[in-house]
Amino acid sequence: MPSIDINCDMGESFGPWVMGQDLELFAHVTSANIACGFHAGDPDVMLRTVRAAIEAGVAIGAHPGLPDLQGFGRRTMSMTPDEVYALVIYQVGALDAFARSQGGRLHHVKTHGALYNMTARDPALANAVARAVHDLDPTLPIYVANAAIAQAARDFGLPTVFEVYADRTYQDDGTLTPRSLPHAMIEDVDQAIAQVKRMVKDGVVRSLSGKDVPIAADTLCIHGDQPGAVQFASQIRTALEAEGIAVKTI
Amino acid sequence: MPSIDINCDMGESFGPWVMGQDLELFAHVTSANIACGFHAGDPDVMLRTVRAAIEAGVAIGAHPGLPDLQGFGRRTMSMTPDEVYALVIYQVGALDAFARSQGGRLHHVKTHGALYNMTARDPALANAVARAVHDLDPTLPIYVANAAIAQAARDFGLPTVFEVYADRTYQDDGTLTPRSLPHAMIEDVDQAIAQVKRMVKDGVVRSLSGKDVPIAADTLCIHGDQPGAVQFASQIRTALEAEGIAVKTI
Amino acid sequence: MPSIDINCDMGESFGPWVMGQDLELFAHVTSANIACGFHAGDPDVMLRTVRAAIEAGVAIGAHPGLPDLQGFGRRTMSMTPDEVYALVIYQVGALDAFARSQGGRLHHVKTHGALYNMTARDPALANAVARAVHDLDPTLPIYVANAAIAQAARDFGLPTVFEVYADRTYQDDGTLTPRSLPHAMIEDVDQAIAQVKRMVKDGVVRSLSGKDVPIAADTLCIHGDQPGAVQFASQIRTALEAEGIAVKTI
Amino acid sequence: MPSIDINCDMGESFGPWVMGQDLELFAHVTSANIACGFHAGDPDVMLRTVRAAIEAGVAIGAHPGLPDLQGFGRRTMSMTPDEVYALVIYQVGALDAFARSQGGRLHHVKTHGALYNMTARDPALANAVARAVHDLDPTLPIYVANAAIAQAARDFGLPTVFEVYADRTYQDDGTLTPRSLPHAMIEDVDQAIAQVKRMVKDGVVRSLSGKDVPIAADTLCIHGDQPGAVQFASQIRTALEAEGIAVKTI
Repeated sequence: MPSIDINCDMGESFGPWVMGQDLELFAHVTSANIACGFHAGDPDVMLRTVRAAIEAGVAIGAHPGLPDLQGFGRRTMSMTPDEVYALVIYQVGALDAFARSQGGRLHHVKTHGALYNMTARDPALANAVARAVHDLDPTLPIYVANAAIAQAARDFGLPTVFEVYADRTYQDDGTLTPRSLPHAMIEDVDQAIAQVKRMVKDGVVRSLSGKDVPIAADTLCIHGDQPGAVQFASQIRTALEAEGIAVKTI
Repeated sequence: MPSIDINCDMGESFGPWVMGQDLELFAHVTSANIACGFHAGDPDVMLRTVRAAIEAGVAIGAHPGLPDLQGFGRRTMSMTPDEVYALVIYQVGALDAFARSQGGRLHHVKTHGALYNMTARDPALANAVARAVHDLDPTLPIYVANAAIAQAARDFGLPTVFEVYADRTYQDDGTLTPRSLPHAMIEDVDQAIAQVKRMVKDGVVRSLSGKDVPIAADTLCIHGDQPGAVQFASQIRTALEAEGIAVKTI
Repeated sequence: MPSIDINCDMGESFGPWVMGQDLELFAHVTSANIACGFHAGDPDVMLRTVRAAIEAGVAIGAHPGLPDLQGFGRRTMSMTPDEVYALVIYQVGALDAFARSQGGRLHHVKTHGALYNMTARDPALANAVARAVHDLDPTLPIYVANAAIAQAARDFGLPTVFEVYADRTYQDDGTLTPRSLPHAMIEDVDQAIAQVKRMVKDGVVRSLSGKDVPIAADTLCIHGDQPGAVQFASQIRTALEAEGIAVKTI
Repeated sequence: MPSIDINCDMGESFGPWVMGQDLELFAHVTSANIACGFHAGDPDVMLRTVRAAIEAGVAIGAHPGLPDLQGFGRRTMSMTPDEVYALVIYQVGALDAFARSQGGRLHHVKTHGALYNMTARDPALANAVARAVHDLDPTLPIYVANAAIAQAARDFGLPTVFEVYADRTYQDDGTLTPRSLPHAMIEDVDQAIAQVKRMVKDGVVRSLSGKDVPIAADTLCIHGDQPGAVQFASQIRTALEAEGIAVKTI
């Protein structure tokens, strides 16, 4: 039976400021990427979010980001591999402690925002992330795009979980159409659902130019901070299950 | 053979700013309380310090503090027990991750500055710290004064390591003479060494008023940020060993 | 013609996180206390908020707070008068720069949260705030409660603007009923409006025990972060104006 | 009589951490670029440094940097022009408030570290800095290299003060030899002094390839954080004055 995980960024509130609809989304996703206090989240938010994930039976992921709270970790910073190595260990360690102390366990790591993009492009930074995860726990999976980070994870023998998007189009080489180009986004829900079904059942995605491109679809990324996110998560899960696709954690 | 541990705060540099003489002190102490990024330390400093501690064979302690970098964690903040619980898990988890990932292991927890003082006085906050450490690892020792935190640690069944000072005088009830009172500090090195010898060998300290007061002396706290700290650490270790006292980690 | 100012805290968003309904509230209030980046706000938010205030013809106030973003400046911190002096100059200076650079001008200062409470109680800290404002501009008004800060402002010859609340009850000495006591809050809108009318027209407030207590009512503080805040601001302004009370900046 | 200003970065301590030898350097320099709390400095440090500058008769400059304390503002961040505009107003405003409140006045602006480099290269960011300074005070000079920021300052009619280095070599186009190339640094003090003399008296610098290249030398930048900084500052000032060059603020 074909299957896919559904992941979503969670725990991105900070202090008095609320972001996202974590509690509603927990009913529909199977894994949560929980912010670790650098780009979002604070110890109180992390504790609450980890407890809610355990309660909901959702897999707990660490979601480390750049040390840029104001910029929400979305502004590229020039970092050395050693700096990236250290900030991943710090943040993943902190989140892991919340999971362990509350009776759960850490399930995966997914980098956030600019760090995600930097480690998709730059092999040295990708290597730093993979080395950090490996040195913490060589069995811990990384959620990856088909990019430098995937190769780095393989180099360290880490399990990789390939991530796909329902609401983004793809190019002929299997990478996402950049948002700066036309037709990067899929607005139509039915089209989004159809794209995911083909990815899971046939292992291909129809590119913008009309080619069927092979793609690994282990986990589907839902954007929790968009209007309609909860409804979309519910719809796509129902549609996938109706198609005989199991929605479950890797 | 009587014995005592010597502990010192370490890893209190931040970014471009250097504090302390960690590398020199590692030669003389047996356990290090390593800052965890809230009152001092950053991921790069933590990584360097943990590696140096492992190299030197010094036991690695987590040294969590209040979220007040500018005030170096020395300004009391009104915190709820839940906030204290969460910030201890966060910081101890981060430091533990550095220890594990570099081939070491976390040996103890000691709170810093205002958090140390708040949890000495306030049973609810002391309980929060002890509960956090217990929920992370019920075998992890806490370094404590004879105060609320010691009782809280016992309540959770945590090992306690009682801390004494060479350069501070004591009152009849076994607590430190407050710095605001005269004769709180012991400036004379020989007198400081003599005080520690009696603590370890006889289990008593001569109070300011001249009474011999029973005291538990598991670990001696050295202040690394004072001029002459390295020399003092060297002197007192040599003097204790000459007296037949083993200087070693608990 | 009797008159009163209506003030509200504004600009309390941070980075990607939105707080309050500033744009809607600007239509109803006459002065804005704009966060200065320590407890909330960041340079981008401050710029946006100052521009919106100028556009709306609302008076621009600096709203300095404690350096505790996660705690939203609501956690008391032990600060020295010198530290408070410096943090007020820093934050008021930054906000003043936004006002001047956008063609506006700074109209007043009101401290935030725990700093407000600390300077209500502690004459030394109140003195530090008043001295900071005086050293920046001896003509700049401070919004005050009937507390230590009012006396400190008078000591430095600063204009004081006395603040009252519509939704809080008062005690016989003219201070607010603490929230920890019963009947501290006024839930009924009509009762709240009636209280403000009497304050402005008669200069008294009916205390919880039924006495008419003299009170200075220069400005009414609206809480912008509560549900129904915009509607309440609109209602009370309309009601006051219907009563022949001018709603305008001091 | 030919003249030159000598400037140095100052006030780069933070909380308990000390950097530089500000008090000693104040005796030798004529203008100070004072950190504004983002890459270094805090309100207490800024207050102390501004007071010391006034005491020493040294001109007070604002030295805004990127919001990256751990990286000391030396890590490039992707920032929009609007973000740069706002952070310059914030920081310059804060420093200006310290100057005014202590009886001094703000003399100039010089950006720090990565922000200096970003605004040397990128006309849009340079424009944002110049616009911010202009909107605060159109008569406020910017210290600039011969780069995008100089053109932007001219576009806004701001006074420009051209900065030269004693300890760096120059290329044929009048720009600094990058540190990544050989012979970028001048280690010999006499050679460094000779280079500055020619810059001031003849308006040229001998490039690495041996050409005399025209150069504007309004201010000489001393690096305060290097060993021997105080002695070097003293030596070069004495040597310039011996040559009949006045060392004074622009």
